[in-house]
Amino acid sequence: MKTVIRPEKDEWGSLCERPSLKKNYLEDKVRDILIRVRTEKDKALYSYSEKFDGVNPGNLKVSADELREAEQLVPEEIKQAINIARENIDKFHRSQLFTEAPVETSRGVRCWRKSVPIEKTGLYIPGGSAPLFSTVLMLGIPAKLAGCKEIIICSPPGKDGKINPFILYTAQLIGIRDIFKAGGAQAIAAMAYGTETIPRVYKIFGPGNQFVTKAKELVQQDGIAIDMPAGPSEVLIISDGMANPEFIAADLISQAEHGADSQVIFLTDSGEMIEKVKLQIENQLLTLPRQEIASGALENSKLILFNTLDDCIGFSNSYAPEHLIINTSDANRLAEKVINAGSVFLGSYSCESAGDYASGTNHTLPTNGYARNYSGVSIESFLKKISFQELTAEGIMNLGPAIEIMAEAEQLNGHKNAVSIRLKSLKNG
Amino acid sequence: MKTVIRPEKDEWGSLCERPSLKKNYLEDKVRDILIRVRTEKDKALYSYSEKFDGVNPGNLKVSADELREAEQLVPEEIKQAINIARENIDKFHRSQLFTEAPVETSRGVRCWRKSVPIEKTGLYIPGGSAPLFSTVLMLGIPAKLAGCKEIIICSPPGKDGKINPFILYTAQLIGIRDIFKAGGAQAIAAMAYGTETIPRVYKIFGPGNQFVTKAKELVQQDGIAIDMPAGPSEVLIISDGMANPEFIAADLISQAEHGADSQVIFLTDSGEMIEKVKLQIENQLLTLPRQEIASGALENSKLILFNTLDDCIGFSNSYAPEHLIINTSDANRLAEKVINAGSVFLGSYSCESAGDYASGTNHTLPTNGYARNYSGVSIESFLKKISFQELTAEGIMNLGPAIEIMAEAEQLNGHKNAVSIRLKSLKNG
Repeated sequence: MKTVIRPEKDEWGSLCERPSLKKNYLEDKVRDILIRVRTEKDKALYSYSEKFDGVNPGNLKVSADELREAEQLVPEEIKQAINIARENIDKFHRSQLFTEAPVETSRGVRCWRKSVPIEKTGLYIPGGSAPLFSTVLMLGIPAKLAGCKEIIICSPPGKDGKINPFILYTAQLIGIRDIFKAGGAQAIAAMAYGTETIPRVYKIFGPGNQFVTKAKELVQQDGIAIDMPAGPSEVLIISDGMANPEFIAADLISQAEHGADSQVIFLTDSGEMIEKVKLQIENQLLTLPRQEIASGALENSKLILFNTLDDCIGFSNSYAPEHLIINTSDANRLAEKVINAGSVFLGSYSCESAGDYASGTNHTLPTNGYARNYSGVSIESFLKKISFQELTAEGIMNLGPAIEIMAEAEQLNGHKNAVSIRLKSLKNG
Repeated sequence: MKTVIRPEKDEWGSLCERPSLKKNYLEDKVRDILIRVRTEKDKALYSYSEKFDGVNPGNLKVSADELREAEQLVPEEIKQAINIARENIDKFHRSQLFTEAPVETSRGVRCWRKSVPIEKTGLYIPGGSAPLFSTVLMLGIPAKLAGCKEIIICSPPGKDGKINPFILYTAQLIGIRDIFKAGGAQAIAAMAYGTETIPRVYKIFGPGNQFVTKAKELVQQDGIAIDMPAGPSEVLIISDGMANPEFIAADLISQAEHGADSQVIFLTDSGEMIEKVKLQIENQLLTLPRQEIASGALENSKLILFNTLDDCIGFSNSYAPEHLIINTSDANRLAEKVINAGSVFLGSYSCESAGDYASGTNHTLPTNGYARNYSGVSIESFLKKISFQELTAEGIMNLGPAIEIMAEAEQLNGHKNAVSIRLKSLKNG
């Protein structure tokens, strides 16, 4: 852990820097995978599954039997917990649905927008040791609420050739039954271009390792939309001298256990608090199962002392964290000043885990500073807004002359003529 | 013009295909430009301006004198027309601003989203023969309404070393005064990475040629957001047998004059109407100044006869046009069935030019089939939505156990502990 005392403003830039990811070596490998899946389709998927997952998954599509089996394998206690999370996520994302009223911009000129679901969407759910069934909720619930007609899931099979039962159970709970055994860049390729078994989609969502991230970046060039660019997960915590250092240490560690590349930053206006938090981290690490991973991330973490809490917020806006915890007695005042962040947690009881699982907000958020120019996943991520306009005869008579003048000034006489011909017809009629 | 009679459904796919753009040869050229501007900054911009614009622009930043001069050069009539357009665009985009209310997802758990402007945005306005000052309105007005702190414009200088006065006048009218003389891929690079004179921005908007489009695509890989991927402009018109063929021909031609690669498609359930429209096109072309360009695009255009208007809408949804004109007597019924389109024009008086300039809707729209997965530019394009959550002691006591169970099931014990430590403290307190 690196402690920084009252950095000058011109040091902020370098303190905000993320470790640069050398991703170029990946690009060629991922491009090869994309091309091979595009041409050989299912055959390529089987071959990559043997190579990377070490298994032949049999049918790529998860069967009804496997879905039933998964339901039996998930303990009742976990089903209940998932249901509580589901209800909150549903409630919050449902509140984001609304219909816009038409606007009469001039007499006889009515304009409006309509939200229409993206027809075909694909959700990628990573496999590996920790089955991220919470991500199934975070992507699947808004996709369903938006009304996407086709929603598919790709997730890599385990050594037994099956997808983790928690993932399968959660998917069918929210009504997704088109689930395919494919992981990595090859799964992204399958959803982008389609194979005999896996249908192609228009937008791809979900977290993943560097191969998955690179594949999502590259398929964009073929017109497939993605949720957002991705990088390692991050938390930035701001506290005053009154906060409970146990809570802060626990929150920093919970981020650090994601991976050795996780970004963990603590800002405060109290020098004493920095010492207390350090001590707490050491204590709490002792009993953590993922101690080794967390220690790696904590080595690169920064604890920074500022003169004021406003400076802390200023620095946070420069950093643009994925998760921002404001654990101060005036959290709501500071919240007003947040410009760049993915999701913000206010007060001492709003830990990041709450948002990761069950408060109702989405946990798919912009990392790596992308909170400056991207939003997290929401209902809008699954919708397009189509604009409509209807001009009456009165409308075109009102507005027509202005359009004619502008079109002519832009040297687009065909555009002008489309109006003139209507005005003439109205005059003659 | 190619006439197609009652195509079978399995022919729709090929009829929907856009001419494939061989863009790969561009990639190396554009990459070179990006790298050179990133390293040599202003010096590279001057060098490219000499090479591509054939001029040394002097100061890259447009001066107050140049802005004053531009104001004097724009005729009063055009100023008035611009003002009418401005008011409508302002009214429609202002209606898209709204504040979301917090939601109590569980007792003691409050979640909400706040829209926050992207701090730094860059607008690219093409130069060349036709000065697209309407695009200044379409990008600048929502940027201003959203509240972006820094809004800059790049546009290439003409042979006189100056930016077109219509563009300069429109920019300052809506309050944008940071305008730079730079065009092409080098302007995109300057906005993405910053130079001594041109500040770097977080999101880049605006149309352009293939170099500009490619540059926007590539800078995304460095974390810069863009409005949307781009391709040649398109219109698809649907009419019944009752429509005025003069209007339809004028609308098809107005799209065709954009460029020889423009896509122009006409669908109808009336064989007679196809003949009438063809005749009208021939007549109207005779007097069009951009006749040659329009003829090029019309050569590739398609006029397709379907059995029913519902089939026309079905085909249109497959094609996903940028502009869709529904010129039928039941336009509002058909509008309900639109799934994929950028902007829709209803009835006989809603010509595309109305939306291009002054109805109030945005004219920056998804082309090339991207209407399947992208929306046009709107106020949201200039905003991020940040989520917030605040749990009270009661909130974490309610929700905590479910979070603990889910975190443990995902093998993230640090996440669990962040909750447990709070529950324990509440029990002891």
